[in-house]
Amino acid sequence: MDESSVTIREVMLRDGLQNIRQFIPTEVKIELFRLIVASGLKDIEITSFVSPGAVPQFRDAPQLAQAILKENPEGAKISALIPNLKGAQNALKSGVRRLSFVMSVSESHNFNNVRRTTAESVEALKKIQDLKKDYPDMILKVGMAVVFGCPFEGKIRPQVTLRFIRQFYHLGCRNISLADTVGFGNPKEVREVSRLCVNEFPDVTFGIHLHNTRGLGLANAFTAYESGIHILDGSIGGLGGCPFAPGASGNTSTEDLVFMFEDMGVRTGVNMDALLKVSRYFKSVKRDVCFTSSILEAGIPIPRGTLTTPSPPLLGP
Amino acid sequence: MDESSVTIREVMLRDGLQNIRQFIPTEVKIELFRLIVASGLKDIEITSFVSPGAVPQFRDAPQLAQAILKENPEGAKISALIPNLKGAQNALKSGVRRLSFVMSVSESHNFNNVRRTTAESVEALKKIQDLKKDYPDMILKVGMAVVFGCPFEGKIRPQVTLRFIRQFYHLGCRNISLADTVGFGNPKEVREVSRLCVNEFPDVTFGIHLHNTRGLGLANAFTAYESGIHILDGSIGGLGGCPFAPGASGNTSTEDLVFMFEDMGVRTGVNMDALLKVSRYFKSVKRDVCFTSSILEAGIPIPRGTLTTPSPPLLGP
Repeated sequence: MDESSVTIREVMLRDGLQNIRQFIPTEVKIELFRLIVASGLKDIEITSFVSPGAVPQFRDAPQLAQAILKENPEGAKISALIPNLKGAQNALKSGVRRLSFVMSVSESHNFNNVRRTTAESVEALKKIQDLKKDYPDMILKVGMAVVFGCPFEGKIRPQVTLRFIRQFYHLGCRNISLADTVGFGNPKEVREVSRLCVNEFPDVTFGIHLHNTRGLGLANAFTAYESGIHILDGSIGGLGGCPFAPGASGNTSTEDLVFMFEDMGVRTGVNMDALLKVSRYFKSVKRDVCFTSSILEAGIPIPRGTLTTPSPPLLGP
Repeated sequence: MDESSVTIREVMLRDGLQNIRQFIPTEVKIELFRLIVASGLKDIEITSFVSPGAVPQFRDAPQLAQAILKENPEGAKISALIPNLKGAQNALKSGVRRLSFVMSVSESHNFNNVRRTTAESVEALKKIQDLKKDYPDMILKVGMAVVFGCPFEGKIRPQVTLRFIRQFYHLGCRNISLADTVGFGNPKEVREVSRLCVNEFPDVTFGIHLHNTRGLGLANAFTAYESGIHILDGSIGGLGGCPFAPGASGNTSTEDLVFMFEDMGVRTGVNMDALLKVSRYFKSVKRDVCFTSSILEAGIPIPRGTLTTPSPPLLGP
């Protein structure tokens, strides 16, 4: 990857849908996936292998994964979230090879999210890594939640995050994502943590997952990018958020990320017109969906010369 | 001003109200001003001395200015927007000494905004500067519109902006504000232009006025701040926008700016609780007002320990 490109990792099908109580039919999810791929997005988290009791929205994870992998045998990078060993086994059985294991860097959030201590989560991670013996093509990523602040414990010191990464590194993990789960981070903190991570672990591929809860998603994405993190999660229409962390709604919108980076001359490989079709399609099948994306609201800048002269005088800067 | 503080210049009473068709009573504007001052904001644009025919909302500019200046003889910095010589004369007659003259760096936007060429605007600026003979305590600021993109002409080259600033400088102007009138700028461009300005004119006080049209208001504010611009316009509740530039709605919200800077350890002097009272009051007198502020929607982070443990397991990063 050169300096002037980024990968936007699309998480709408997982993070975007997990808050929607009404089950979205598998065929709709497949059509969303097709439209996402058609826009040029190539790294896509398609579902979560959690207990269907906990999140009924993902009860079709095996069928969805099989259908998508059949259509897309060697195209886009297809990944699924897994909270534990069982989720990993189920994902692998369904053909998924890119697994996003999630654990929080605070004890209280980890307990609330996955019902175990962080030490127990690290143990689970070891066992999941061991599955590589049976699935040598498995690619395991660790998604570290609440790195930039926890709703229960407040700000998290960067050294806490780094200590966990050292553990993951010794277990063989080379793919790590830093998540601002509840949108508590600011651009300085994101820069500081990103630089510390990239400098200490030059052979780890880092990604970042930024919520836009307090409007800082794009500012944080900008400093993460400039600090050497070139994989950024986005959710089309800004859909999603952690449902049980108060105030956590609102992923950073893929449309807004694509606009910002392309406008700065950083290539995303995404075609904006094709991208806008995804939200349009989803709105057509689910009219009450609530998007939070500046680009969806404002539109991309109108090309020069297409405006007619307005008649009344204007007013200010 | 030290490196770890910023001035948020509050423009809600001008930029925030100019799009509201229904006349807001002068007493309401005065009460808004009082609440703004009580929050700790000290640099406040209170109105616009434009033709009452063009913007009926500001038909009370002289009375409002007189009432506010009477209450606030030497407290906050009170300024008013002026589009021309007549506006300047009227503002000065009403007691206002801080004038924000506005002109655009593109011919087409300047013509549409103030009905004259940029050369004619510079001529008007000269005449306004001459008023210093009669009003030696006058402080004139030039607000440069569409610096980061024009709805008619697209992106504006930084050299165009710098050429205008050189003219203003030779006329004696030492207060200049760069405006992203329609929210076309990105963090890289804002950094580039800010650095060029600050480096070439170290004795000019620069401010910046950033719309949040495409969600980049805070990212742009961050790079402007880091590039040495420490006066940033904000509008409480994100109210406002240039009404005749399509897609220009949405100022950067004062609440969001204050949150971002304070969270980074950069002092604003603003008390968030007191600040939130301004939008609450305005909503109570004008129920249909539409705010666009992430902090107003999400709230500031909940202090550690105030959350009760949620019962269902959570899901992801």
